[in-house]
Amino acid sequence: MDLRRREFAALMLGGASALSLAGRADAQSDRESDPLPSWHAGPAKDAIVKFVHATTDAASPAFVPPAERVATFDQDGTLWVEHPIYTQIVFAFDRVPQVVKERPELADEPAFKAVLSGDRELIASLSMEELLSLVGATLTGMDVETYRDEVAAWIQDARDPRWNRPYTDLVYQPQIELLQYLRARGYRTYIVTGGGQDFVRAYSEPVYGVPPEQVIGTMFGLGFQPRADGKSVLVREPKLLLNDDNAGKPEGIHLVIGRRPQFAFGNSTGDRQMLEYAEAGGGPRLAMLVLHDDGEREYAYGPARGLPDSKIGTFPQSLYDQAMKDGWTVVSMKSDWKRIFAFE
Amino acid sequence: MDLRRREFAALMLGGASALSLAGRADAQSDRESDPLPSWHAGPAKDAIVKFVHATTDAASPAFVPPAERVATFDQDGTLWVEHPIYTQIVFAFDRVPQVVKERPELADEPAFKAVLSGDRELIASLSMEELLSLVGATLTGMDVETYRDEVAAWIQDARDPRWNRPYTDLVYQPQIELLQYLRARGYRTYIVTGGGQDFVRAYSEPVYGVPPEQVIGTMFGLGFQPRADGKSVLVREPKLLLNDDNAGKPEGIHLVIGRRPQFAFGNSTGDRQMLEYAEAGGGPRLAMLVLHDDGEREYAYGPARGLPDSKIGTFPQSLYDQAMKDGWTVVSMKSDWKRIFAFE
Repeated sequence: MDLRRREFAALMLGGASALSLAGRADAQSDRESDPLPSWHAGPAKDAIVKFVHATTDAASPAFVPPAERVATFDQDGTLWVEHPIYTQIVFAFDRVPQVVKERPELADEPAFKAVLSGDRELIASLSMEELLSLVGATLTGMDVETYRDEVAAWIQDARDPRWNRPYTDLVYQPQIELLQYLRARGYRTYIVTGGGQDFVRAYSEPVYGVPPEQVIGTMFGLGFQPRADGKSVLVREPKLLLNDDNAGKPEGIHLVIGRRPQFAFGNSTGDRQMLEYAEAGGGPRLAMLVLHDDGEREYAYGPARGLPDSKIGTFPQSLYDQAMKDGWTVVSMKSDWKRIFAFE
Repeated sequence: MDLRRREFAALMLGGASALSLAGRADAQSDRESDPLPSWHAGPAKDAIVKFVHATTDAASPAFVPPAERVATFDQDGTLWVEHPIYTQIVFAFDRVPQVVKERPELADEPAFKAVLSGDRELIASLSMEELLSLVGATLTGMDVETYRDEVAAWIQDARDPRWNRPYTDLVYQPQIELLQYLRARGYRTYIVTGGGQDFVRAYSEPVYGVPPEQVIGTMFGLGFQPRADGKSVLVREPKLLLNDDNAGKPEGIHLVIGRRPQFAFGNSTGDRQMLEYAEAGGGPRLAMLVLHDDGEREYAYGPARGLPDSKIGTFPQSLYDQAMKDGWTVVSMKSDWKRIFAFE
């Protein structure tokens, strides 16, 4: 029903209350017709809507049965802000004083020394390997339920310094809409993160609507140990079981899901294999990458397309070229996203 | 409605067709009132029905929200026959000639030598370690999709020698009813097997109604490799990632689900930690074990309760004692199961 016909109907029905009813129906129909209000019209939004229609319309030749509707999303830089440093690393830093109190010998390790000094330049100079070793030392040794509770408590209190808001406010509103849209069309939405699986599980349900069994992440070995009360718990061991980054992403996806995703969304070189794996399944697949090209509203880094280089969430030109060659969709934060955060 | 009242109603309605209608309604009502027709009345069946009512009735103090309803089942010896040897080992044996053709150096390994000789005694004398090394050598090296197709083709053709039937006919009918009953009450049913995760995934959906993402099993590392056509695949590597037995079961459950099961069902010493883990969650939990005490209809082995000892699916007296002490339910195949197989 177009506007004129609706107005006409309202007049026929008589007056303001009918108009107002029609207005409400219109708003509802708008929401139904645009499930992605924070996305600008354009090729990225088109690609999503076309893909969803093609794979969920029973009459479509590209129809995908509900059981096979799997969409996988990287987290850091794809669902929420990853600059200036991954939130999980901030959590690990915050735990350093307590951990050093329990194990003073750690104070001499380079990463611990840097964090304890508070010297920003020294901290910034730490290699990813040094950071991961700090994560291994600070985020293991406790049972999985204690760990979950500690993460949940921390993430409620901690604040990102730039926006002075909880990190969980720094999720991208367009992506929240996309997750909801996919689920409404029968897709199961998984997070596939290089971050710790149990770190993300501690908040994934309230923040993203993603339950623990749909979080795939870097996995540590777990020891089955009796507690003082005779009950047994699973204790996080400093033993890397799966590094869920690069080729570890398709590996983790197979171990946890056992199906190839129809849709994969990432933002950096660590997501390349996940997108390749989804795409190689043939048929209707969608592979997408967020390009952080909005230094005003968020951050600008690549180094693809002449953006500044970055150690965190690197998006090299070679990945951009591969995306163009393979028909992957690159999402520009600047021009594809109307709104980045819900609080805007 | 009891029989006399129904007959009376039928007579009042007039004649044979009404009687037949009443009969059909009765059969339907029976099925509704007894979701477990292959289970004899008794403490095991009672424990199941009480547990399901307590955890799924919204008015019950022990109510469990649907998202948390997780039930985990061992496979070999719990859902299907595991004697005289695990079905997956038979599959591995059947692949030996082909694998030795490709890699002749394997012919000298003890397990390969035994299988190639066809000497039953020699094969029976192989240690579990030697068998697992044979599994590692025969069931890796191909991509996950090829492997799934090979398992699916084999399991359709292969026959168990005792019953001369497909192995998938040797699933326990009472357990199929239990899986269906639990799912009808909102439980997600997982298989948690010491067998290979991808072996079981190849048939779990048609046989048990369990989709690939709900199969947790022994995991091998996966390599992400380009194929000749430029598409990439995941190749099974002879590198054990998770031995999903004993303490590996709760570990695998946490990695894949991230929740503690409300209900765990096993049959041997390898399931002990899974049951302990479920039980230690507190609140309404059910832990069950099948005791193979029916040598006529299936097999008899323990050595608990004076049954013959067995290398496959050992159920020691200490496990039986622990079950009694901790209030776990031991299911006697002989006296708790009316019918063992659907084909009976």
